[in-house]
Amino acid sequence: MGALDEGHFDAELENGVRLGCLELGDEEGPDTLAIEDAVKVLLQGLGEDVNREGLKKTPLRVAKAFLEGTRGYRQYVKDIVQGALFPEAGLDKEIGHAGGAGGLVIVRDLNLFSYCESCLLPFQVKCHVGYVPSGQRVVGLSKLSRVSDVYAKRLQDPQRLADEIASALQNGIKPAGVAVVLQCLHIQYPASLASNHEDWVKIQVTSGSGAFKDEKAGIWGDFLSLLKSRGININKSCTRDSTGKSWCPSRSPSISPTCSSFGSMNPKMVTAVTSIIQLLGEDPSRKELVGTPSRFVKWLMNFQNTNLPMKLTGCTIHNVDSLSNGEVNGEMEQICSELNLPFCSQCEHHLLPFHGSVHIGYFCREGFSPSVKSLLQSIVHFYGSKLQVQERLTRQIAETVSSLLGGDVMVVVEAYHTCMISRGIEKFGSNTATIAVLGRFSTDSVARSKFLDSISEANGW
Amino acid sequence: MGALDEGHFDAELENGVRLGCLELGDEEGPDTLAIEDAVKVLLQGLGEDVNREGLKKTPLRVAKAFLEGTRGYRQYVKDIVQGALFPEAGLDKEIGHAGGAGGLVIVRDLNLFSYCESCLLPFQVKCHVGYVPSGQRVVGLSKLSRVSDVYAKRLQDPQRLADEIASALQNGIKPAGVAVVLQCLHIQYPASLASNHEDWVKIQVTSGSGAFKDEKAGIWGDFLSLLKSRGININKSCTRDSTGKSWCPSRSPSISPTCSSFGSMNPKMVTAVTSIIQLLGEDPSRKELVGTPSRFVKWLMNFQNTNLPMKLTGCTIHNVDSLSNGEVNGEMEQICSELNLPFCSQCEHHLLPFHGSVHIGYFCREGFSPSVKSLLQSIVHFYGSKLQVQERLTRQIAETVSSLLGGDVMVVVEAYHTCMISRGIEKFGSNTATIAVLGRFSTDSVARSKFLDSISEANGW
Repeated sequence: MGALDEGHFDAELENGVRLGCLELGDEEGPDTLAIEDAVKVLLQGLGEDVNREGLKKTPLRVAKAFLEGTRGYRQYVKDIVQGALFPEAGLDKEIGHAGGAGGLVIVRDLNLFSYCESCLLPFQVKCHVGYVPSGQRVVGLSKLSRVSDVYAKRLQDPQRLADEIASALQNGIKPAGVAVVLQCLHIQYPASLASNHEDWVKIQVTSGSGAFKDEKAGIWGDFLSLLKSRGININKSCTRDSTGKSWCPSRSPSISPTCSSFGSMNPKMVTAVTSIIQLLGEDPSRKELVGTPSRFVKWLMNFQNTNLPMKLTGCTIHNVDSLSNGEVNGEMEQICSELNLPFCSQCEHHLLPFHGSVHIGYFCREGFSPSVKSLLQSIVHFYGSKLQVQERLTRQIAETVSSLLGGDVMVVVEAYHTCMISRGIEKFGSNTATIAVLGRFSTDSVARSKFLDSISEANGW
Repeated sequence: MGALDEGHFDAELENGVRLGCLELGDEEGPDTLAIEDAVKVLLQGLGEDVNREGLKKTPLRVAKAFLEGTRGYRQYVKDIVQGALFPEAGLDKEIGHAGGAGGLVIVRDLNLFSYCESCLLPFQVKCHVGYVPSGQRVVGLSKLSRVSDVYAKRLQDPQRLADEIASALQNGIKPAGVAVVLQCLHIQYPASLASNHEDWVKIQVTSGSGAFKDEKAGIWGDFLSLLKSRGININKSCTRDSTGKSWCPSRSPSISPTCSSFGSMNPKMVTAVTSIIQLLGEDPSRKELVGTPSRFVKWLMNFQNTNLPMKLTGCTIHNVDSLSNGEVNGEMEQICSELNLPFCSQCEHHLLPFHGSVHIGYFCREGFSPSVKSLLQSIVHFYGSKLQVQERLTRQIAETVSSLLGGDVMVVVEAYHTCMISRGIEKFGSNTATIAVLGRFSTDSVARSKFLDSISEANGW
């Protein structure tokens, strides 16, 4: 805490912490084991064999991910801010304000993620946080990120998250004011199936304390101008969420998953999720969490293992099928493609969503474009609707499309993996692509590159 | 490792690891203490009082940052890949290739950072990595990132980093091939002072093994097409760095820092840096590291504490000075600004660079635009050229400009802090802004917002 009096921090600040990453080594504590048992119940409820290869370590991975993703319950702001407050002379209040005493300090574009308290899925947070120093002291810049992360790593709602960050920094630093702006993204079921045709539900929320308490205060203008200079446009007039409505798509009546009513839900699965919430240190009877176990199970049931083969009777595409058999002159053929078919699947290693686009290329006779988009989308949806890995999903789509559109098929799956951003490595923005090539595509590099170029073009590059 | 035979991994893989974050708690090991002592020598060499408030904990922070930033020396690939190889059926080779067996798997846009072996400064890495599975097995996607990070967290050169990642994944997964593309950014002294007027030195390198060994192989085309579909354009023909020349700007003869020759360098400082390199687990006599201690000291000496006040004699700007005293009618005044003055400073808490732009606003008589840009740039450079914190830098620039251009001044400093990306929190893309407002700017919110809007406009928003 530098030269500053330790007494600046007192009873309102909590105590004790394990900073950095949680020690989740090979040794498993009793909480980890109990969560693993609950995850096994969920896997069984999905019709899965918990002993099959890909799933053997899934309960442990899920337990670790949940504990790591809610480590904020076991972290405390005092331990973060303590030792990172520095004395810094400011200007005389009479003549103005400056960094260190009265001048705004902002950190923009902090990537965080949090867990939605309504459905237990992770959501992404772009966090912008600022404060106006006072009392001749400033805080180390990284602490604004660390404190924000403590509250993000809990079961949250965006507005509460913003309020808790603002309040913790206000109490921890005792500045003239704190401002928090969050831009949050919540995954929802794929665009083609969602009511608003978006992959994400988006929300912006703000919170302010001290000089930022008044939403109309001039200093908010300075803060928002500095966001604008980074291309971040916030409409202050409608950013505080006071509707009381949840943003979570699982609470929206317009989304109807496979399992349409809570009544038909496996009660063992609901009980298992309730116990997980409790083991993470939360109270499952807190009013915002009532119904969360059912909503999480509802989400999971979108990926139930039906063990049914895909029925493709009556789906034969004439002409195309014959074409690939070489009955049409090769010079008459062209590469057709269906691009950006949305999908959402569930990673079988972490029980977390991965989602993105599928691109399918095939040969067909020049001038002939079979109307197969809805059929291909159904195939994509069918293979996405189970516990998956992206590599297998790619192969399964390719094999099935091949049986319909001839043997010359190429499939590219581009996906964001929630496990890549919300688990230990937190690689925001990373994106995975997998390819399957069949028939002529595997030997014809010109055909491959024509198809791949069409993806770049469709993406605007 | 799932159902796969443990025997697939054998002697060529290393053993033992401490994954995740290094245990750098409050207890300090003998290496940490020895690095702290060396850092104190550096601070003293810079003319600093190691007991002044902002610097008290700097030796510990620097020691932790160095140990964390080179934790790759104490991590092993086997421990990362083991347990994350999954059996995944592929297509029959006769009919094509698919995810899981023969189909390309790529993870794009992984943000990493590494330490430059030539100068010890961190450099940013955008890593794109792919492999072609074989033997009916795939690796968990996050492991591509973790393995890459093991090699990034060492003293590196971009080409060696790419080669080591490719080789480690080839040995660890035994796939049909591995491809690695790195886009690296190395900080250099600010644009106005550097020869090429860029804040960054940029380089792209590639490395391939197995099916990617041949740089002209068709599969490279698929890989690069999938990068292109994310807007990443790689010119394959000139991406393998075989020149043997270092990209590091500290090796470029065109950059002449304050301390122009090694001869005049404090030998105690050079010895201290040599001991740090040794304590991190490296051999200071490795040929790429010879000269590194001198180059790091040379960089640090740009930020030597001269204890000299800035000399501004003969710099009075007429008209402007009188204007601000109210001798000219207020309606005749306008807000003038000098935007995007580059700066580079050194964070006194972590001994790491922070750099970006300074924007300065002031009032002047309408139609009169004093030619002060080079003067303002000198002021910015003067206050950047020492161990600093951004809040203090902002205030010092504002106070000095105020004495020249009248009392109505506003300063905005926008900066990237290397400590925010290269230390524990690794907040890539985050950016800090600080404001100082003097005189009329502190009460006139319209003036503030006019000036702030001009920054957004200059940034193209």
